[in-house]
Amino acid sequence: MSIPQRILVAPSGFKESLDAVEVAAAIAAGIRRVIPGVQVTTVPMADGGEGTAAALSSATGGRLVQHRVTGPVGSPVDSHFAMLGKVDRPTAVVEMAAAAGLRLVPAALRDPGLTTTRGVGELILAALDQGAERIIVGCGDSGTSDGGAGALRALGARVLDTEGNELPEGGAALANAAAVDLSGLDSRIAGTKIDLALNPFNVLCGPQGVARVFGPQKGASPEQVEVLSAGLDRWARLLAEATGQLESYLRTGPGTGASGGLGAGLAALGANLVPRFELLLDSGLAGVDLDAHISRADLVVTAEGAIDFQTPRGKVPAEVARRAQAAGVPVLALAGSIGKDSGDVHAAGIDAIAGIIPIPMDLDTAVANGATLLREATERTFRVLLLGSAISSRLGNAA
Amino acid sequence: MSIPQRILVAPSGFKESLDAVEVAAAIAAGIRRVIPGVQVTTVPMADGGEGTAAALSSATGGRLVQHRVTGPVGSPVDSHFAMLGKVDRPTAVVEMAAAAGLRLVPAALRDPGLTTTRGVGELILAALDQGAERIIVGCGDSGTSDGGAGALRALGARVLDTEGNELPEGGAALANAAAVDLSGLDSRIAGTKIDLALNPFNVLCGPQGVARVFGPQKGASPEQVEVLSAGLDRWARLLAEATGQLESYLRTGPGTGASGGLGAGLAALGANLVPRFELLLDSGLAGVDLDAHISRADLVVTAEGAIDFQTPRGKVPAEVARRAQAAGVPVLALAGSIGKDSGDVHAAGIDAIAGIIPIPMDLDTAVANGATLLREATERTFRVLLLGSAISSRLGNAA
Repeated sequence: MSIPQRILVAPSGFKESLDAVEVAAAIAAGIRRVIPGVQVTTVPMADGGEGTAAALSSATGGRLVQHRVTGPVGSPVDSHFAMLGKVDRPTAVVEMAAAAGLRLVPAALRDPGLTTTRGVGELILAALDQGAERIIVGCGDSGTSDGGAGALRALGARVLDTEGNELPEGGAALANAAAVDLSGLDSRIAGTKIDLALNPFNVLCGPQGVARVFGPQKGASPEQVEVLSAGLDRWARLLAEATGQLESYLRTGPGTGASGGLGAGLAALGANLVPRFELLLDSGLAGVDLDAHISRADLVVTAEGAIDFQTPRGKVPAEVARRAQAAGVPVLALAGSIGKDSGDVHAAGIDAIAGIIPIPMDLDTAVANGATLLREATERTFRVLLLGSAISSRLGNAA
Repeated sequence: MSIPQRILVAPSGFKESLDAVEVAAAIAAGIRRVIPGVQVTTVPMADGGEGTAAALSSATGGRLVQHRVTGPVGSPVDSHFAMLGKVDRPTAVVEMAAAAGLRLVPAALRDPGLTTTRGVGELILAALDQGAERIIVGCGDSGTSDGGAGALRALGARVLDTEGNELPEGGAALANAAAVDLSGLDSRIAGTKIDLALNPFNVLCGPQGVARVFGPQKGASPEQVEVLSAGLDRWARLLAEATGQLESYLRTGPGTGASGGLGAGLAALGANLVPRFELLLDSGLAGVDLDAHISRADLVVTAEGAIDFQTPRGKVPAEVARRAQAAGVPVLALAGSIGKDSGDVHAAGIDAIAGIIPIPMDLDTAVANGATLLREATERTFRVLLLGSAISSRLGNAA
């Protein structure tokens, strides 16, 4: 019987339950219980979201700088950014989730009409104070929908109503914005290379705009989604007027919708919107050659908290599968939840999907027991996989 | 690539969600979506519980007789029994679940201290009225814990307290029983061959007694479990006194605990307690030669609502796996819920287990969507299985 002996585990984190390192460890443990002597390589996938600053700092021998900022609901939060090692000019990594992530928004306060990215701007200022000449902003896992308005205000911008008064923070207020004043913008911004690592499938406006696609999971009601969409429409126009950027680019350019529209806000200031895997993996920043690992594997296992219609739209399992498919290596995906239209992922190169929920249980229970559920599901799934190998050998020998 | 082309699907029903025929159909549909041209044979497993009378009637060309009886909570229920075809003497099949099953107990009235098997005795009388000389009583899916006291009372027995008064129905009252009077027992019972089809792992008394093992899922609190256990202890002694049967046999003989102790109650009257698969399958009554089907299969798929520590104790997947293992055919089991210690089933010959729950959800939702969940999970599981086959072929060719 020929069974996979070299397995690459390249998962995303499971949002609000396990980070990518924990996911990779649970899957590896499950595999080892079923295939003794197996060689498992883990590549937790940095995706720009939670853990990105720490992962890149660690990979480059850099350092994490602790910095307290304004959190997404206005109260202070202890945050951090990375100053990378092994770079030719001072480079910072600002992880937006560390300043304005969904995890920092208490469940009772999940109103993306009010949450702000101000802390992201404060981290950028702190990175400039550390001498950063290049700033990588990791996008993902955001709890905001303010188009980056809070971040721009931290950097010196003013967002004004028709009477010239400053508007409150948050995406809802943008529906009443009449002008953006950039005259007070920190002068260092213009001379700094700012690269956003983001999912290029996320756009600011239109039917697939960020408020419509992600607003509900950040806590917005259908009515709020419409208010937020209208606000972001207006925000794109005002940013274009203030900066001379093309309004159509700010509305639907690839990645403009990243992190509740932070992509558009920083793009208006001249930041580059870069597909995250290109920036994080292919540049070598993450310190790992995923393609080389794939080429040496009999099987690639990826995973994400949810696998559904969104998965092919730039999520980790789709990216891993794309590369594995190119190398002719099969892919198994594990998922905390398997949603509608998950069958679409087969077209994206994922050969098989397995869920991790063993019995009817609520989401909180699943989240609280993520590591155990994932390890046990991996064991079960690999027993099925080995059963397929055994049947194949048995029939092959009989033929 | 060698993939299974002849698959036997031999599942149990999923309690309160799908009967065995529906389970088999959902699994077969899922397999066909993944392996075009596959030859799937379905053998829904009759296990003595719900559907047994109809299945045996259908298999033998017999007929179902409709009969209204006293239901488990005292109100009348429309029930039925089978008069079999192709038998050398008139044979009835009485399905206890059709007269006193858990499904007939409204959720709000789930108190096994009060529910009665009286309707089972009424079906036996009706079968005698139809001229039955042999009565097969299918046990399983019961909602009672009265030791068969209700059934015996319907047949003419009296259960008395210390003052010689008749006790109320139900298992709780047995704790106050002082005597069983069989003087009024229907005289036809003595001349009738009564065979119970049951799970021999179920015993009436002791630490693994039926009240302790099954009481909770029938709605008993921990305190009620103790009352029921004490009542069944007393019931075994009184039955032994009244009939001359060995008390130790009635307490812990194989199958005495079947259907809340109905096994012990009818055994006291001389009924035979027969392992259900021996009675239903090996006798040919079910009209199917499971072993022959297994021997022709590349893979056997079985299923049950729950796979857990109980599974090896005489459940359908364990029986199917035992026979498949003897024939050297691998076994995959699908389960609505995968409980603690489910790993024990591998020792019982089940090679791999897969769950059907794709996302965190409550039990009611899972039960209501059983067929869809099962079909989709079968698809996913077979994609994993085929992935194993593909890897095996790929590695085998490379080697």
